[in-house]
Amino acid sequence: MRPDRLIAFTDGVIAILITILVLELRPPAGEHFGDILDEKGRLLAYLLTFVFVAIYWVNHHHLLQVVSRIDGRALWANIGLLFCLSLTPVATDWLGETGVKNGPAAAYALVLIGCAVAYTLFTLSLLALHESESQLHRAIGDDRKGRLSLALYVVAFILAWLEPWVSVGIFVTVALIWIIPDRRITRTLDTL
Amino acid sequence: MRPDRLIAFTDGVIAILITILVLELRPPAGEHFGDILDEKGRLLAYLLTFVFVAIYWVNHHHLLQVVSRIDGRALWANIGLLFCLSLTPVATDWLGETGVKNGPAAAYALVLIGCAVAYTLFTLSLLALHESESQLHRAIGDDRKGRLSLALYVVAFILAWLEPWVSVGIFVTVALIWIIPDRRITRTLDTL
Amino acid sequence: MRPDRLIAFTDGVIAILITILVLELRPPAGEHFGDILDEKGRLLAYLLTFVFVAIYWVNHHHLLQVVSRIDGRALWANIGLLFCLSLTPVATDWLGETGVKNGPAAAYALVLIGCAVAYTLFTLSLLALHESESQLHRAIGDDRKGRLSLALYVVAFILAWLEPWVSVGIFVTVALIWIIPDRRITRTLDTL
Amino acid sequence: MRPDRLIAFTDGVIAILITILVLELRPPAGEHFGDILDEKGRLLAYLLTFVFVAIYWVNHHHLLQVVSRIDGRALWANIGLLFCLSLTPVATDWLGETGVKNGPAAAYALVLIGCAVAYTLFTLSLLALHESESQLHRAIGDDRKGRLSLALYVVAFILAWLEPWVSVGIFVTVALIWIIPDRRITRTLDTL
Repeated sequence: MRPDRLIAFTDGVIAILITILVLELRPPAGEHFGDILDEKGRLLAYLLTFVFVAIYWVNHHHLLQVVSRIDGRALWANIGLLFCLSLTPVATDWLGETGVKNGPAAAYALVLIGCAVAYTLFTLSLLALHESESQLHRAIGDDRKGRLSLALYVVAFILAWLEPWVSVGIFVTVALIWIIPDRRITRTLDTL
Repeated sequence: MRPDRLIAFTDGVIAILITILVLELRPPAGEHFGDILDEKGRLLAYLLTFVFVAIYWVNHHHLLQVVSRIDGRALWANIGLLFCLSLTPVATDWLGETGVKNGPAAAYALVLIGCAVAYTLFTLSLLALHESESQLHRAIGDDRKGRLSLALYVVAFILAWLEPWVSVGIFVTVALIWIIPDRRITRTLDTL
Repeated sequence: MRPDRLIAFTDGVIAILITILVLELRPPAGEHFGDILDEKGRLLAYLLTFVFVAIYWVNHHHLLQVVSRIDGRALWANIGLLFCLSLTPVATDWLGETGVKNGPAAAYALVLIGCAVAYTLFTLSLLALHESESQLHRAIGDDRKGRLSLALYVVAFILAWLEPWVSVGIFVTVALIWIIPDRRITRTLDTL
Repeated sequence: MRPDRLIAFTDGVIAILITILVLELRPPAGEHFGDILDEKGRLLAYLLTFVFVAIYWVNHHHLLQVVSRIDGRALWANIGLLFCLSLTPVATDWLGETGVKNGPAAAYALVLIGCAVAYTLFTLSLLALHESESQLHRAIGDDRKGRLSLALYVVAFILAWLEPWVSVGIFVTVALIWIIPDRRITRTLDTL
């Protein structure tokens, strides 16, 4: 099967997830410009989720550029990824409301672990469908970046019980690693 | 008429339905990791609806792979299916809030009966448009799985008045039957 | 310009509008199956809006089948239609909450007048772009159904001040007229 | 990379943003037609955001007509634009709730400055990808309208501290400038 509809459905779900936190943003209670600062926790939480979900969309976009066919297993792996991504708004919301505490930091790390595992499973389901000489195999290689992220999330989950700010630092670091689009795929595409 | 826009609209509506329950997920009141358990009713309700709607999307996806044309009747049958699916979030929500009681279990069974009937009507409207030698006819055959599900939902509706937990067991069973994508269609597609 | 993106955007907006009222549906307060009846006002309001918006989507779908190009004016006429449609949920909500009273019935008629006028303007903007020998011109003809609906909405608006139930009867009547897809276009398409 | 999926994702996000404020529209508390006036603040706020977001969608639509390829930088510039646009509902909401005061008027100007800067960066990222002889370069020219808008937003931000009504006047003026689709692009397209 061709991946057209998987792509369209994913775009729809991610478009909703990325904007659904807007509903949590309330105008400040006061009338002064400075009152915006009262909402800075929610604003930063919104920005974090927005960037995080955008990263997954961009990587999904790059990945699907070199995918020529899918099957039922890939469909379900993708749905699993969407489910994990759909938990990021509520996890970020918890972090934004209570501040950086053990519980929400660990929960956030857990959601990120879920997303990373789901993305890896999705990638594996696609690799299984393409010959080892395919563009996809050349572009993905051994997926070092994916494994590194997963390892860092596990570290963040453990450290959340000791010092949650370190976990938040790890989240931001991994985000920055991923914000740079996958050069392996870009490079392969450039040679076309 | 070609089914392109019916597909796009369906993807849009299902993408919204599958994520709309996220809005019901609230961060736990406390700050401890264990406080997540206070929300496990809502989380399981969300998971159930997510899986359920995803099953319909996957089956719709497989079905439309072998559909080459639609008409006004198929459009309206599809809209009827979307309407029934749109009631699953509120039915699951009731089940999640009150726990497994007669009323919500029967209501949930009723919504599932509606979805199954609507999906069957949609399939019939498509079969009527395609020659009996078409890919669609060969792929669908006599739709035993569809009829079995409908029968089980009716049983679940009746048993909900005696022992609602049996109904929930039936819901999960039917979900598992459907989570395996329609092999009849997959088989036909594989031979292309 | 080709109408592809106008179609995709319209599908997205209508998919959201048609499902946004789901958020207003709350599970019944009690645990008994009969408690669903407490919510029948909201359920009927939801069904009415769902059918109403679906009618516009189906007619938009049929119309765009015979449209080969658009311009900036058509884009804005379409946006005007989407704006008017976006007011139907809140109008229905008012009708559902207060019951059939003068105010909400007149407001509902006003929103329907807005939708009908916007749809007519959109049709005119498309007719201006196509030669009089085009498929679109042959399919639309003189748009008697559109003008009849508009006249009936105006009657409903006036009668809402005397007897709002008559207005509701008119709403349902016009909905039934439109639920039958535009035979003029279907006929033209069938001859292709 | 081809811009297909960037377009689909943008359409999805904008379709949600443009309708998300509907959720803020509540039916009036009373039963009289005149009670609608109690909600006129929210209705005008909704109309303003709807028009504003629609303008960006129409201009994005026109711009992408002459874009033949994108890269990772353009993807992220587009995501930045979507983020800025996603703040318009809450900014308008503040303006609608408090009335035209210094704080919300300045905040609204700031969000508009963000959108204008993001749109300019997106345009620049696309110009960098196309040869100077391309349709895009001929169509965009030196983007005088974009620079003028940005300058006016900055003026509106400054004047918001003195007389917020002047800022609102500037917002409406710039909206009217943009509501006329980019003639430079239309002209280039007409000659195809």
